[in-house]
Amino acid sequence: MLIEIWGDVVCPWCYVATARFHKALAAFEHHEEVQVRHRSFELEPGRDPAHIEPVPAFLTRRFGAQGPAMDKQVATLARAEKLPYRTDRLVGSTLDAHRLLHLAEDRGRAQQLLKVLFEANFGRAASIFTAPALLELAAGVGLERDAVQAVLEDPDAYLADVRADESAAADLGAHGVPFFLFDRRRALSGAQPAEGLAEALRSTWKTRTIPVLEAEGAVCAPDGSCAVPQP
Amino acid sequence: MLIEIWGDVVCPWCYVATARFHKALAAFEHHEEVQVRHRSFELEPGRDPAHIEPVPAFLTRRFGAQGPAMDKQVATLARAEKLPYRTDRLVGSTLDAHRLLHLAEDRGRAQQLLKVLFEANFGRAASIFTAPALLELAAGVGLERDAVQAVLEDPDAYLADVRADESAAADLGAHGVPFFLFDRRRALSGAQPAEGLAEALRSTWKTRTIPVLEAEGAVCAPDGSCAVPQP
Repeated sequence: MLIEIWGDVVCPWCYVATARFHKALAAFEHHEEVQVRHRSFELEPGRDPAHIEPVPAFLTRRFGAQGPAMDKQVATLARAEKLPYRTDRLVGSTLDAHRLLHLAEDRGRAQQLLKVLFEANFGRAASIFTAPALLELAAGVGLERDAVQAVLEDPDAYLADVRADESAAADLGAHGVPFFLFDRRRALSGAQPAEGLAEALRSTWKTRTIPVLEAEGAVCAPDGSCAVPQP
Repeated sequence: MLIEIWGDVVCPWCYVATARFHKALAAFEHHEEVQVRHRSFELEPGRDPAHIEPVPAFLTRRFGAQGPAMDKQVATLARAEKLPYRTDRLVGSTLDAHRLLHLAEDRGRAQQLLKVLFEANFGRAASIFTAPALLELAAGVGLERDAVQAVLEDPDAYLADVRADESAAADLGAHGVPFFLFDRRRALSGAQPAEGLAEALRSTWKTRTIPVLEAEGAVCAPDGSCAVPQP
């Protein structure tokens, strides 16, 4: 069963929902048969990579005093779920992080890299927006430094994968993140409670066989019979 | 949109249903966006490849006098749809034909090869059970002779693909063929009328976007807002 999660590494609800999802998944009896894929969704595509700024300044510019207040509400909720949350963190372009997440996906390490990116950004207010910072984080989850460096130096590396994820999100009608797609059949938008995600895992599992809609047509069976159906 | 059709080259209802499907597809307005894939299903897996015999003898052995009578009923129905149908054709192992169909799939020629296999078997009562016969038919749809010869000489070539198709059919609950899978979401078993196949194409097309089941969760939107939902 394939679970795809669209999100951004600077998206607070993605941070919260991804942690909830992994908790629900760990408790799910068929978790070994579940494959999880990160899908890229930049909250601010086209942001100047040189423009790194504190989140309170960014939110104030966008929403006035309400901006930082909104973030403090999310912080309270995240901490209640034992997720460290710094409101004095930074924000910047996440394109390089997404390109590296695709490299990590190829190596089977995307969920590990996503986790350390979330921890660095939300838990420690560390920058995840410069090449040296990303290189250390990626190397820390076992990616080869040379491969990471090569991706960071080539702006086209994995760019098509990031864009494909974003256009798939648009096709699915996902205008915000997190966005969960269960087995390409069921979608959940937003940070559902852990129990909602657990229930989605269970019900998607139960319906994983595709129902046969019509079975009245004539068939040939392995015994060699190909009878004409009688009306 | 992907349409997968499980079938066997000696299966009369597959012959009839595949012709109906291609007729429905040609008339379907979005036919250029439809990809068709042959999926292997041997009616008699494990049949001795050296054992080639006339169909009437095979059916009599299996079902008594009723066997050939059953085939004549199918013949009447097929001819009414302008599909030539010889009841004096041969039957044998179809494993090599399926392995070649997978080679043809790699070259984008599987539907063409399937068509000539059906025509040779049902229309002309020609053998499709020996390497020289298969080589000529495959070359006739543009496959390189060397590649075809190599597959015919190596019993393991594309064997895993044939077995994967057969085990996927079992997972889907398909115990006979033809079996149609529309976009991995809807299945039709048996030789439906052309109108039923046309309707399945239309309705699968209409529902190709996946509905979002729950949209009440908290999301971060591209404007940077990540508001806490108010109960």
